[in-house]
Amino acid sequence: MDFNISDKGQDYLRRVKQFMEDEVYPVEGHYHRELASRENRWVELPVIRELKEKARAQGLWNMFFPDETHGCGLLNSDYALIAEDTGRSFIAPEIFNCNAPDTGNMEVLIHYGSDQQKAEWLTPLLEGRIRSAFCMTEPAVASSDATNMEATATVEGGEVVLNGRKWWSTGIGHPDCKVGIFMGVTDPEAHKHRRHSMVLVPLDTPGITVERMLPVFGAYDEPYGHGQVLFDNVRLPKSAIIAGPGRGFEIAQGRLGPGRVHHCMRAIGAAERTLELMIRRATSREAFGRPLAKLGANPDIIANARMAIEQARLLTLKCAWALDTKGIAGALQEVSMIKAVIPSMLQKIVDDAIQIHGGAGVSDDDFPLTALFGYARVLRLADGPDEVHRAMVARLELRKYK
Amino acid sequence: MDFNISDKGQDYLRRVKQFMEDEVYPVEGHYHRELASRENRWVELPVIRELKEKARAQGLWNMFFPDETHGCGLLNSDYALIAEDTGRSFIAPEIFNCNAPDTGNMEVLIHYGSDQQKAEWLTPLLEGRIRSAFCMTEPAVASSDATNMEATATVEGGEVVLNGRKWWSTGIGHPDCKVGIFMGVTDPEAHKHRRHSMVLVPLDTPGITVERMLPVFGAYDEPYGHGQVLFDNVRLPKSAIIAGPGRGFEIAQGRLGPGRVHHCMRAIGAAERTLELMIRRATSREAFGRPLAKLGANPDIIANARMAIEQARLLTLKCAWALDTKGIAGALQEVSMIKAVIPSMLQKIVDDAIQIHGGAGVSDDDFPLTALFGYARVLRLADGPDEVHRAMVARLELRKYK
Amino acid sequence: MDFNISDKGQDYLRRVKQFMEDEVYPVEGHYHRELASRENRWVELPVIRELKEKARAQGLWNMFFPDETHGCGLLNSDYALIAEDTGRSFIAPEIFNCNAPDTGNMEVLIHYGSDQQKAEWLTPLLEGRIRSAFCMTEPAVASSDATNMEATATVEGGEVVLNGRKWWSTGIGHPDCKVGIFMGVTDPEAHKHRRHSMVLVPLDTPGITVERMLPVFGAYDEPYGHGQVLFDNVRLPKSAIIAGPGRGFEIAQGRLGPGRVHHCMRAIGAAERTLELMIRRATSREAFGRPLAKLGANPDIIANARMAIEQARLLTLKCAWALDTKGIAGALQEVSMIKAVIPSMLQKIVDDAIQIHGGAGVSDDDFPLTALFGYARVLRLADGPDEVHRAMVARLELRKYK
Amino acid sequence: MDFNISDKGQDYLRRVKQFMEDEVYPVEGHYHRELASRENRWVELPVIRELKEKARAQGLWNMFFPDETHGCGLLNSDYALIAEDTGRSFIAPEIFNCNAPDTGNMEVLIHYGSDQQKAEWLTPLLEGRIRSAFCMTEPAVASSDATNMEATATVEGGEVVLNGRKWWSTGIGHPDCKVGIFMGVTDPEAHKHRRHSMVLVPLDTPGITVERMLPVFGAYDEPYGHGQVLFDNVRLPKSAIIAGPGRGFEIAQGRLGPGRVHHCMRAIGAAERTLELMIRRATSREAFGRPLAKLGANPDIIANARMAIEQARLLTLKCAWALDTKGIAGALQEVSMIKAVIPSMLQKIVDDAIQIHGGAGVSDDDFPLTALFGYARVLRLADGPDEVHRAMVARLELRKYK
Repeated sequence: MDFNISDKGQDYLRRVKQFMEDEVYPVEGHYHRELASRENRWVELPVIRELKEKARAQGLWNMFFPDETHGCGLLNSDYALIAEDTGRSFIAPEIFNCNAPDTGNMEVLIHYGSDQQKAEWLTPLLEGRIRSAFCMTEPAVASSDATNMEATATVEGGEVVLNGRKWWSTGIGHPDCKVGIFMGVTDPEAHKHRRHSMVLVPLDTPGITVERMLPVFGAYDEPYGHGQVLFDNVRLPKSAIIAGPGRGFEIAQGRLGPGRVHHCMRAIGAAERTLELMIRRATSREAFGRPLAKLGANPDIIANARMAIEQARLLTLKCAWALDTKGIAGALQEVSMIKAVIPSMLQKIVDDAIQIHGGAGVSDDDFPLTALFGYARVLRLADGPDEVHRAMVARLELRKYK
Repeated sequence: MDFNISDKGQDYLRRVKQFMEDEVYPVEGHYHRELASRENRWVELPVIRELKEKARAQGLWNMFFPDETHGCGLLNSDYALIAEDTGRSFIAPEIFNCNAPDTGNMEVLIHYGSDQQKAEWLTPLLEGRIRSAFCMTEPAVASSDATNMEATATVEGGEVVLNGRKWWSTGIGHPDCKVGIFMGVTDPEAHKHRRHSMVLVPLDTPGITVERMLPVFGAYDEPYGHGQVLFDNVRLPKSAIIAGPGRGFEIAQGRLGPGRVHHCMRAIGAAERTLELMIRRATSREAFGRPLAKLGANPDIIANARMAIEQARLLTLKCAWALDTKGIAGALQEVSMIKAVIPSMLQKIVDDAIQIHGGAGVSDDDFPLTALFGYARVLRLADGPDEVHRAMVARLELRKYK
Repeated sequence: MDFNISDKGQDYLRRVKQFMEDEVYPVEGHYHRELASRENRWVELPVIRELKEKARAQGLWNMFFPDETHGCGLLNSDYALIAEDTGRSFIAPEIFNCNAPDTGNMEVLIHYGSDQQKAEWLTPLLEGRIRSAFCMTEPAVASSDATNMEATATVEGGEVVLNGRKWWSTGIGHPDCKVGIFMGVTDPEAHKHRRHSMVLVPLDTPGITVERMLPVFGAYDEPYGHGQVLFDNVRLPKSAIIAGPGRGFEIAQGRLGPGRVHHCMRAIGAAERTLELMIRRATSREAFGRPLAKLGANPDIIANARMAIEQARLLTLKCAWALDTKGIAGALQEVSMIKAVIPSMLQKIVDDAIQIHGGAGVSDDDFPLTALFGYARVLRLADGPDEVHRAMVARLELRKYK
Repeated sequence: MDFNISDKGQDYLRRVKQFMEDEVYPVEGHYHRELASRENRWVELPVIRELKEKARAQGLWNMFFPDETHGCGLLNSDYALIAEDTGRSFIAPEIFNCNAPDTGNMEVLIHYGSDQQKAEWLTPLLEGRIRSAFCMTEPAVASSDATNMEATATVEGGEVVLNGRKWWSTGIGHPDCKVGIFMGVTDPEAHKHRRHSMVLVPLDTPGITVERMLPVFGAYDEPYGHGQVLFDNVRLPKSAIIAGPGRGFEIAQGRLGPGRVHHCMRAIGAAERTLELMIRRATSREAFGRPLAKLGANPDIIANARMAIEQARLLTLKCAWALDTKGIAGALQEVSMIKAVIPSMLQKIVDDAIQIHGGAGVSDDDFPLTALFGYARVLRLADGPDEVHRAMVARLELRKYK
């Protein structure tokens, strides 16, 4: 038994931590204030571009890929701790070109993309020149049940025609976001796992309208954002379908394993940063003659946060290790477990941190707590709500007794 | 035992409900969209003025006052259910001139104000011509411990001089907000309950700067808002001190009983509306072949919400009744209990409603759930954090065994 | 609005409290030690008989009946607070002839019994000369779903024949327990609410075997106990069927309203006594230089207990009042709510009290906490598990929106 | 990173699991019934002796010792999973001579015992010929604060004299229990960590009275039991003091690291067995047309149990690994974390299992759930209550920010 990551992983982790200390944390405050001061916040500030170049020059780039061709040859369990560290800052993931949904989209292209698709879209994504969106969830139906999907990707001769309204298309507000992966029903009569297709769609194709950007607890998460997008008779050559018609469900499944580890580890990083904020506040303020950290149930709150984070991290590392050693099929329950556990864990800790901050906790001017809260709250819904993941855990558990 | 309110109360309640149905709910949506479309949202839209006049003409005005001179002669227990109903809409309380902090400020003036103070400020407040703020909480210290207060109200000859920085001065952004009640230390050597004064301060007095408006989960709650206010050598005649120097703590205590009932009953109204939203959503969407309302733990969530609301309402009504029959001194534990219980209850129900709404729940565009969440979250801090109220409940409980 | 009970209720409540102080609390300790020292604990100790006579002589007898003929003419809301007081002591309910399941069984006989049934069984029950059992739950099936019931009450000519195995037949171990009410299927083809009959069965009828007494967390609750009872071709005249064949479900429904109020109010009395124990312990022991009551989260635990009890009591009183003013049909949701809320509330408070007592809390030698825990734990299952009541609350809630 | 234990550990684990399957599970039911039928349950039934011999013959003996001289040379992280497996059965730990408090007592003797002490007591303990007790907790004071200890171990010339009343001396009811380790104050003036001594005391020494055995939720846990023991002027040669006067606190600290891992891993085994019982029941009973396992919130309950167990196990394994690689000083927070987390986790799962079992859950006749509940409940108090461990976790957390 060994809870240490590989030597290579440790080397990368050390370098990422150093980069965070030297380059990221020092500019965060300024970055957010600068962006907030802009009339148009849907822009990439130059500092991001500069840091991306620095990170890339140091080889801290695309680290999420397990292979050495596209990534750095790190195991999922190695990268997990790196993802945690990048999760401590809202701006870090992009700087290392490890931001969702680009990570998942790149993986899809590597595993399922045609040579042409790779040349056209994978290369610039790998280089961080463009960004991408994933268009799956729909406003009109409960998306927790994939069979509810109403959007269509109809094959007509040599074309595929996209129709439907999607929302929570994350990242679509970014000026560099050039391409999306659209999921729709191609053959409604087919088996429910053979019905959907994924289509690679350039966002300047006629018929695409970003109807609005969706706020999360009042925040638009500029310059990325979450869009509601209308696809109205969007026509593409049939070759835009990834891996051919009817394979959408299969691709979606494969996309989710490592992606959930990344999401969860970033959330753990966010939880660590929240705990740090909580403790700094609780040790610097006094009431009734004692620092808040010593008052009433506050030590319990701090201890509970530490214990929840430790357990969440270990669960996620175990999941990453299972992916490394057994593949997605051997890690199904683990993947569902982390997605059901970690976002709620983060939400609880942020909520407690808000309480300890008092009025400063609910105002996003002084501390990033409401942004962290929104992040946690969305994560309990994104990529399947908690309920769906718990149901999956239970189903797999019952199967053991058959 | 009788859980019905008085006949008079029932008559008022029926009329308020009718007014809400006929006048308030129909305009809410338009009101919020209209305000959101304004470049300057720190304005009173005409519809509010019109509805205030209608409400006043119907005698649905200042109903929170128990006496017949200023109010309608309703008991606290009568008014409680009316407050609940107004809590279902963010715009309703002002329409009936029953909005915090004006309610509490008017009560202070009635009980402690000089004739001159009443003539100058109480009359226009009673008529809804001006609005007011309450400046107590401070950014630099843990305000849960009143002895931490740093702002000063120093008597110098015939003047009182205010210095200090306050925040969460609610309502100070409103264009009609003309006066504040400022609390500061007058005699730091006095007994800790004799140290503070409350001062009535016209907001156009030199030395007052609203440094910024504070967002709550990204929302500024226009046109009311929460301000951070600097008082820099603000000079007023000594007669501006309410009830004379050193009585600030006493006034603050008296102000809190009915005010907390109002806050809590409005929160219960908000909880009822949230439950209604939750059920409407859960019965109109399907997943896995059943409406969400029948799926998994969702019936439990609905039942738990109903049971929590019922209990919270009864606790608050009992508190109101205790205030009616025994006065504030006979209702101390009840007042602390409701403040400790109800805001958390609301937060939990809103959080569950968000989950059932899926992505639509975190976006304030379509449903008011994030605004309701922010409201609940602030209420767990405003007017004393949960912790302080629980501590008070415990202290009074232990006293029974001495 | 009036949270006071009637003058008559207050008079009875005062007298019951006095009786508890003068007669019950002083003998409790001795009673339990004496019983524990007996080889055969399935006996009525003389002190119980004496106290029953005293209580009856003072008119503190059968107070649960709302009518003046059988009871004292107290409202449900009056009796509720009396039930609470008797719930503070495990021996009190019988002393006032207000013990379950006799209370419910007597109500059934009054409302549905024939003159002959009343003469034979109701009279001695009213006089406290005999006791009774209620035989409904079955070991072989999930009894939360009444349609699962397997026991049969078959009409054959002028006879009814009982077959089946029941358990959790409470009180059947008592030497004075002479009669049971047995529920079984008479016509499996009938509508599911017309299928069952209730049969009055003398416990010395051939074919009845008490197979074993069931421990609750190791305690047998002597001399009452919970029995597993085999009914093997038990033959009775058809006149033993209460109100005729097929009316079992109807009778069961009617039986449950006031009975649940009694159960819940006794549980609230138990919670109050638990809180008293908790506070006495927490104020009499020190650790780290402070009494436990002031340490860490303990004040929160005390406050939470007080707030939960207050809310639970008000919910139950409201339910009792609804029964008084609207009848069972107007109190359906209230009845389900109290049964879903109060037992869990009690369990949580007992668990916290155990923790504060340390090792003394888990040992039933020194404090009644494990007995209280068992009582609470069983109550979450008896008379329908929590789940069934929450489901009913949700169902009735959804109905409001149709 | 590697979540597998060592090859050697896997070999032992496989053999223990086989032994459990072949020898332990098949006799459990009979064992408990047989013991329950005895008038005197304070006996070792022959089957235990036989199984001990078999286990010893197979080398499955004293596996908790990390060294090869006394144990099997297994790492803490190897043994942890073995302890989990033995925790699935109440009789297993003794069979492998891995039962508390003997494990901890043997460790104390190995590390601190004199040659004479080892010869006299360690050897028969290692061979499983005798058993031992640990006498630390006291009834008269809050033992969570070690400085409260009132018992004394006074050095008088060449003797040490023990006085005081201890309780929760686990195992003292066993007929083979021959020796205890007694902790008392030797020098009340010394530094608080230098005040106490541990004394090895033969239980037949004059002056020792087992005043009573303490029930846990009605169960006496025969033939081990928990005793209340009076030490009244118990005189021993000074050489009975372990490692010399004043070192009691130091020894107690060293004793606790691996011991807590063992406790927690056994509790995890108990949780796994509970989950198995829960699922078997939930899949074998139906209500409202579906198996309980599919009904309402039950899938969530199953999923939550699985997720809690997984996290708890990983936390404990990480703690064991930290002990292996960094020693007790490098695992302080981990040790406190597991003790604060795991017992509550087990209690919650057992409580849920009881609910799903219905009436059968609260009766210890049919399922071991109430025994498991009592075990969990005691574990939240034994070896320091939850509160003390959370406080330690918080203290160590705050230290990181100094």
